[in-house]
Amino acid sequence: MKTLVVCSGGLDSVSLAHRIAALGDLMGLISFDYGQRHRVELEYAAACATRLGVFHQIIDMRAIGSQLTGSALTDNLDVPDGHYAEETMRITVVPNRNAIMLTVAFGVAAARQAEAVAIAVHGGDHFIYPDCRPDFIDSFDTMQRHALDGYASVRLLAPYVNGSKADIVSDGAKHDTPFVETWSCYKGGTKHCGRCGTCVERREAFHLAGVDDPTDYADPDFWKSATAGFNAEEIR
Amino acid sequence: MKTLVVCSGGLDSVSLAHRIAALGDLMGLISFDYGQRHRVELEYAAACATRLGVFHQIIDMRAIGSQLTGSALTDNLDVPDGHYAEETMRITVVPNRNAIMLTVAFGVAAARQAEAVAIAVHGGDHFIYPDCRPDFIDSFDTMQRHALDGYASVRLLAPYVNGSKADIVSDGAKHDTPFVETWSCYKGGTKHCGRCGTCVERREAFHLAGVDDPTDYADPDFWKSATAGFNAEEIR
Repeated sequence: MKTLVVCSGGLDSVSLAHRIAALGDLMGLISFDYGQRHRVELEYAAACATRLGVFHQIIDMRAIGSQLTGSALTDNLDVPDGHYAEETMRITVVPNRNAIMLTVAFGVAAARQAEAVAIAVHGGDHFIYPDCRPDFIDSFDTMQRHALDGYASVRLLAPYVNGSKADIVSDGAKHDTPFVETWSCYKGGTKHCGRCGTCVERREAFHLAGVDDPTDYADPDFWKSATAGFNAEEIR
Repeated sequence: MKTLVVCSGGLDSVSLAHRIAALGDLMGLISFDYGQRHRVELEYAAACATRLGVFHQIIDMRAIGSQLTGSALTDNLDVPDGHYAEETMRITVVPNRNAIMLTVAFGVAAARQAEAVAIAVHGGDHFIYPDCRPDFIDSFDTMQRHALDGYASVRLLAPYVNGSKADIVSDGAKHDTPFVETWSCYKGGTKHCGRCGTCVERREAFHLAGVDDPTDYADPDFWKSATAGFNAEEIR
């Protein structure tokens, strides 16, 4: 099934691209430039496409991103430190981001005659992000069947939707994903800060998966104190 | 219910804006610039917002539009003459256009704390456009409920989805819509050509509604021959 992978350049979506490539289904990668602070991740997505020998299409969403206010990812607000699951992380939500990116990806898929779009949402995102939950994935797939009826048949794949980020690390390792060639940090520095929600979540996922984390963090130990207040099973 | 109307500047969406304004629910208009050939319609949307005393937000989708190939609306293909219902009009379909525009509109609605997004799809579009059909509208509304769960509650309104374009003309007349201040022609000239699918459909709708058509067409009589081969009831 010829598949387009929505790839941010992060650990999850690069692992997904390697998984789909191992199945022989990878057609190309699609990334979104919505004016995010952590734009360096787009270079990691490009490197992934080169490595896997497929096209990389970057969609310029900056004009749209600037209209979607109230998010620390695009506005001049400080990105909070700490674990993703904390209430303060709600500030990083871009309203309707996944739905917007996926409808565009489905438009590209229809134009390129792809048969599927794959996205790397996972269970660890459910707590904060409604557009990462199984109900969203299922209803989106249904909506798209109606939207493209008679023109194209494109399915939405979300193989990690019921898994944890640790499961993604395990799956990525299985498919020889070069994790050091992925980017997670939201702060946009030259190395992973080790303190923002996504750095903490990343470091913890390697720990839970029992896989060596090759990432060079500015603060490599902060994650332990940030996650100490949570029951790791509960937040997975 | 504070409502954003997706307004192209065409007859349908300007009539819808006047309808929602008459209900006291109009919050603003949102238009999309996706590099369409008939960009003059955006000026009619702006004029509608000014007339009704609400904001007008234009979303620049040109970077995305250029990626959605295969459509005569944005490519350098000729727009065919004739009735919409003809097979040749399929060339005017932008893949996934309504789904893309609506997800962006819902993002804006969530950011602005609107309670509804309204779109002027109608029964005459069902034959060619799957993303104008009731199944699409219903499944889109369901998808958005999941996508924004816990953050915003925005409903999708499509009051004309089971009506004809003639019904829209009747409804627009009831709410004093200045039809001459709306644009339909796909060809991008200085006056309505009277020959393209949307001009023919527009002229026919006034005829069926029994409302005077104030439009100045370059070819005012072409519609009669274009619609002669169709059973008007069947195609409504």
